[in-house]
Amino acid sequence: MLLHDDRLFPADPVTRGIARRLFAAIRDLPIISPHGHTDPRWYAENNPFPDPATLFVKPDHYIFRMLYSQGVQLEQLGIPRKDGAPVETDPRKIWQIFADHWHLFRGTPTRLWFEHAASTIFGVNERLTSENADRIYDKIAAKLEEPELRPRALFERFNIEAISTTEGALDDLKWHDMVRDSGWGGKVVTAYRPDSVVDPEFEGFAENLEKLGELTGEDIGSWTGYLAAHRQRRAYFKQRGATSSDHGHATARTANLSDAEAEKLYAKILKGKVSAKDADLFRGQMLTEMAKMSLDDGLVLQIHPGSWRNHNAALFEHFGRDMGCDIPTATNYVEALKPLLDAVGNERNLTVIAFTLDETSYSRELAPLAGHYPALKLGPGWWFLDAPEAMLRFRELTTETAGFYNTVGFNDDTRAYLSIPARHDLARRVDCAYLAKLVAEHRLEEDEAAEVAHDLAYRLAKEAYKL
Amino acid sequence: MLLHDDRLFPADPVTRGIARRLFAAIRDLPIISPHGHTDPRWYAENNPFPDPATLFVKPDHYIFRMLYSQGVQLEQLGIPRKDGAPVETDPRKIWQIFADHWHLFRGTPTRLWFEHAASTIFGVNERLTSENADRIYDKIAAKLEEPELRPRALFERFNIEAISTTEGALDDLKWHDMVRDSGWGGKVVTAYRPDSVVDPEFEGFAENLEKLGELTGEDIGSWTGYLAAHRQRRAYFKQRGATSSDHGHATARTANLSDAEAEKLYAKILKGKVSAKDADLFRGQMLTEMAKMSLDDGLVLQIHPGSWRNHNAALFEHFGRDMGCDIPTATNYVEALKPLLDAVGNERNLTVIAFTLDETSYSRELAPLAGHYPALKLGPGWWFLDAPEAMLRFRELTTETAGFYNTVGFNDDTRAYLSIPARHDLARRVDCAYLAKLVAEHRLEEDEAAEVAHDLAYRLAKEAYKL
Amino acid sequence: MLLHDDRLFPADPVTRGIARRLFAAIRDLPIISPHGHTDPRWYAENNPFPDPATLFVKPDHYIFRMLYSQGVQLEQLGIPRKDGAPVETDPRKIWQIFADHWHLFRGTPTRLWFEHAASTIFGVNERLTSENADRIYDKIAAKLEEPELRPRALFERFNIEAISTTEGALDDLKWHDMVRDSGWGGKVVTAYRPDSVVDPEFEGFAENLEKLGELTGEDIGSWTGYLAAHRQRRAYFKQRGATSSDHGHATARTANLSDAEAEKLYAKILKGKVSAKDADLFRGQMLTEMAKMSLDDGLVLQIHPGSWRNHNAALFEHFGRDMGCDIPTATNYVEALKPLLDAVGNERNLTVIAFTLDETSYSRELAPLAGHYPALKLGPGWWFLDAPEAMLRFRELTTETAGFYNTVGFNDDTRAYLSIPARHDLARRVDCAYLAKLVAEHRLEEDEAAEVAHDLAYRLAKEAYKL
Repeated sequence: MLLHDDRLFPADPVTRGIARRLFAAIRDLPIISPHGHTDPRWYAENNPFPDPATLFVKPDHYIFRMLYSQGVQLEQLGIPRKDGAPVETDPRKIWQIFADHWHLFRGTPTRLWFEHAASTIFGVNERLTSENADRIYDKIAAKLEEPELRPRALFERFNIEAISTTEGALDDLKWHDMVRDSGWGGKVVTAYRPDSVVDPEFEGFAENLEKLGELTGEDIGSWTGYLAAHRQRRAYFKQRGATSSDHGHATARTANLSDAEAEKLYAKILKGKVSAKDADLFRGQMLTEMAKMSLDDGLVLQIHPGSWRNHNAALFEHFGRDMGCDIPTATNYVEALKPLLDAVGNERNLTVIAFTLDETSYSRELAPLAGHYPALKLGPGWWFLDAPEAMLRFRELTTETAGFYNTVGFNDDTRAYLSIPARHDLARRVDCAYLAKLVAEHRLEEDEAAEVAHDLAYRLAKEAYKL
Repeated sequence: MLLHDDRLFPADPVTRGIARRLFAAIRDLPIISPHGHTDPRWYAENNPFPDPATLFVKPDHYIFRMLYSQGVQLEQLGIPRKDGAPVETDPRKIWQIFADHWHLFRGTPTRLWFEHAASTIFGVNERLTSENADRIYDKIAAKLEEPELRPRALFERFNIEAISTTEGALDDLKWHDMVRDSGWGGKVVTAYRPDSVVDPEFEGFAENLEKLGELTGEDIGSWTGYLAAHRQRRAYFKQRGATSSDHGHATARTANLSDAEAEKLYAKILKGKVSAKDADLFRGQMLTEMAKMSLDDGLVLQIHPGSWRNHNAALFEHFGRDMGCDIPTATNYVEALKPLLDAVGNERNLTVIAFTLDETSYSRELAPLAGHYPALKLGPGWWFLDAPEAMLRFRELTTETAGFYNTVGFNDDTRAYLSIPARHDLARRVDCAYLAKLVAEHRLEEDEAAEVAHDLAYRLAKEAYKL
Repeated sequence: MLLHDDRLFPADPVTRGIARRLFAAIRDLPIISPHGHTDPRWYAENNPFPDPATLFVKPDHYIFRMLYSQGVQLEQLGIPRKDGAPVETDPRKIWQIFADHWHLFRGTPTRLWFEHAASTIFGVNERLTSENADRIYDKIAAKLEEPELRPRALFERFNIEAISTTEGALDDLKWHDMVRDSGWGGKVVTAYRPDSVVDPEFEGFAENLEKLGELTGEDIGSWTGYLAAHRQRRAYFKQRGATSSDHGHATARTANLSDAEAEKLYAKILKGKVSAKDADLFRGQMLTEMAKMSLDDGLVLQIHPGSWRNHNAALFEHFGRDMGCDIPTATNYVEALKPLLDAVGNERNLTVIAFTLDETSYSRELAPLAGHYPALKLGPGWWFLDAPEAMLRFRELTTETAGFYNTVGFNDDTRAYLSIPARHDLARRVDCAYLAKLVAEHRLEEDEAAEVAHDLAYRLAKEAYKL
């Protein structure tokens, strides 16, 4: 039996007892997944998932970054090279490599996510080893052919009440249309992610702007036309269920220029050859513009700052983006968010959700900011911080200043569909463990903790994201 | 029963047993409150406190910042606007809003402080709810009229051995004189807080300097006269019991200019139109000057750096200072304090106490500095860090490098008089919990832990602050 | 009985039981000490150690920094002054001061290290006090005269399988030769520490370069000659067993200049009067050069950045280096290491081990970097972070992202020979405590934890350092 029913609960019997009771009452609540990266095509076409390696190993940068760090080459894992040079194509061989290195994931969330999926979805209740790799591969592969393993069936089985995908501003959202037109009842919404037409340093920015103009019929040669184009695309996304926009900038920097200054800056941006400073200023200005648009259309604004994308130059050159080499950097919020907060921070009908990869900002900056500004809420542990110890630190470092109610529940933020129940299970357990400690130490009474547990698992995400 | 006798003690029975024993021996020690912001007028006039809302809600920025973050407007809480526009005046309505939002404080120290005061002072032993708000209001209001609820009676009941208030350099300290002349025996001292005449960016700095000149008869047009004026005011404060000065600067920056350079800088400052850089340099220079004066007059120097005051521009405009929107910033000490430490850091008869709002400096900078320089001590968790989890982290992050004896016990640092026993109770409990863990893990023996507990609760504050 | 057999294990009985079992299986494993500062002369000459004060107090900057912080003068501890002014010479008096201040070390690792050595090596099983100081002094002094207290006998008794000392690039390594030629079987290797000929700001840099030229016969007037000289010295060190180089720079900054740029920079450096910026660039370039040499000669590259050396100007002036006043500073790795990682980070046959004094980089920077780059590994808690709470935080903050297998086991990094078993004992206990928690919370199974415990205590250090 791999999955112990008390996993992640503190060992002390009194505290564990409280955690069990709290968790029992929320473990079966529907999943609200307000931010993530699953592929809408899955829900649209409802095709079976391919083999175990393509399902578990190849798309998961948590997995291949760890294997790579220990000497496995991406080619061995079947990751396509940009130069088209041959890479491994036999999923069984890739799976074997994964199994041979399974010990590397001890103490990591990948271990917990994988074993949860393996056990609950595929009935695999033994530890993955070099020896049983083949047998487990067969078991999973066989299961994948069954109808209840199709995306929509899993959606229902996972008890997902609503899920958001994330699409670029230029996306036609055809898969979302197809889901809607299919008559299937699953709630799959999109989110507006305009980085490619907001960040002057994004690959192909100029062409992206042109496409934005074509798509919307707005004159992107002018600042007002450019803003109108965004408004139009936001409306288009909103029609496909979007309740939020999302912004992945290198820093949390915001700006609030006068119209004249903004116009001038945009004109400079249009000409190309933008300095790093101007690019940063423009991204910052656009965050505030987006917040102002949110005042009108109600989209929730998410800021995901502070990742140094594609840090490994050679890997980026040979394999492209998202190869497990995005690295967090120190992120300042107090100065960076001030222009946006000065503009809209006191709005009670706006929700801006700040995320971080830099834990040092939790108690120093983010909790004090979110514990004061009506518009600002604190996103859950993101990326490297989406693991038990880090999630516990998130609560320990933010609750005393911002409370529970300036946070917004859990985001699984994943492209690994099968890990969604595992991730929510983990988040619910960690929150119950934290609450159980408060109760055991007489800092909170158990009936209150039960209400908070329910809020963190379900209500806060639903309300903050309007899902 | 709201207040459990084991609150804040670890759940493990062995550790809890040790914590209980350690705490039992120190829970009734007198309170030394060496740094805080209670109003000396209370002790001077000994008038009754007003209604529950004015007592608990309106003056407590922990409370109204949280309510504000969740959409309550300051006007609804009766906070006066600078433009004189009407605000709520019915304390019962304000109290009701507080009660309606009581769940927001789950997991925060406000919850613990309020329930301690409610239970021990007012006999309120039920949780505040929308439904019982009125009844509890009445109970507290009735109690407030009784003579044992007067400031001096509470002082004695709280078992306060000594308390320090904080006054600006230009204060006439008349309330302290009145306390002294009253014949009442309570030890209420002041502390010298010269920010308004040391910080060129302080509102009204030029006028403040003039007043300083008038008050002291010194020629504040000259650097030597300006320093002499400080010396005189420090002596005036010392006569009213002051044993410390306190400095709330934006950064921890210090400087140690030559006399000629300092004179030149002061001349520049006097002319007005000071650059941010010069202002920062001047504040830094004045910290060192104050430390040098401390060598003569023995005042303990407290540095409270790293708060971005009045971060919310609109709130500052409409309501003024101290509206719950001061936000911590990253604070460097190693470079910042070097000039001061080079000047006086090796003095064994000087005490400089450094505080921080930036926990990242605890293990990296402050513990190593305080664990080396004879003059430097580490202040307790301040402001947002004055809560159970944060206080525990303070010990975990500093003790291994600086030990217990380079810290100075607890500061309640509050303007909320009724929360003082609660805050000291909390600090004592958290320290006992930490010590109990050391004992349970055989890193310290229990008789030693008992001595340390006593030192942290009483002796270190008394000695460091000479109270 | 001072040393409890369960010390440092969590109090919860279930967790403690697991920790005990894990520890029992590894407590007697041989010691691999791959990085440290013991004196090779001890092993070469095998003379008795002197008196207790000279053994325990005078060379240990953990001890004298704490005593100094509380008003003890270095002269009282017999630390020689540069001006030759008299200092205490009676070791018994120094010992008495140490004993009189023993309470200062409560909660610090010094306490644990000393009591382990006192008990296991000297049979001292009572707490040090002012009263028993003399008696304990006598007991230790008597024991020191016995043959089993000689360095080589202790080496065997400590069960040291291999130990590395650290020598400057100009060292003749004669003690290592003497050890080798002695026929004694203890494995004592050196490590190449070229700071004095790599850092243009090092005292006597120009003379050091000249000596480097003389020693190697290379033309240090040219960049290629300078590099050749390093290569030669590395080979010389490698012949004396070196498997690693070590670099103690103020920052983690690296650079990867073109040959022409590097040559030009070196020419500038040679001329003297180097700007701080150029000095930093040169140090950074040399880290990358060293990494490239490691590709050829296989030495492991260790980077120990981020210490502000000799922060206390007066102490440095009067007593010189290493007086307990080196203070950590904030250290950035993501930008700093990029040039080196771009050059060699994807090499699977290279090992670069990064250390830090800045815990904030663990989860934000170092774990994500080490969890991706094949060449990069994470060194254990260093210096102020080499203590129980800090070591636990190291695991909590790095394991979820980098796993266990991108770390390299333990370094005692000490010049205090007698503390080596204590330090390894402590590290093994803390790791077992961490693993026991994972097992108790069903995040890892006990057989896996046992394997990890063995790896952390022995195998990872042996493999990473090729010992």
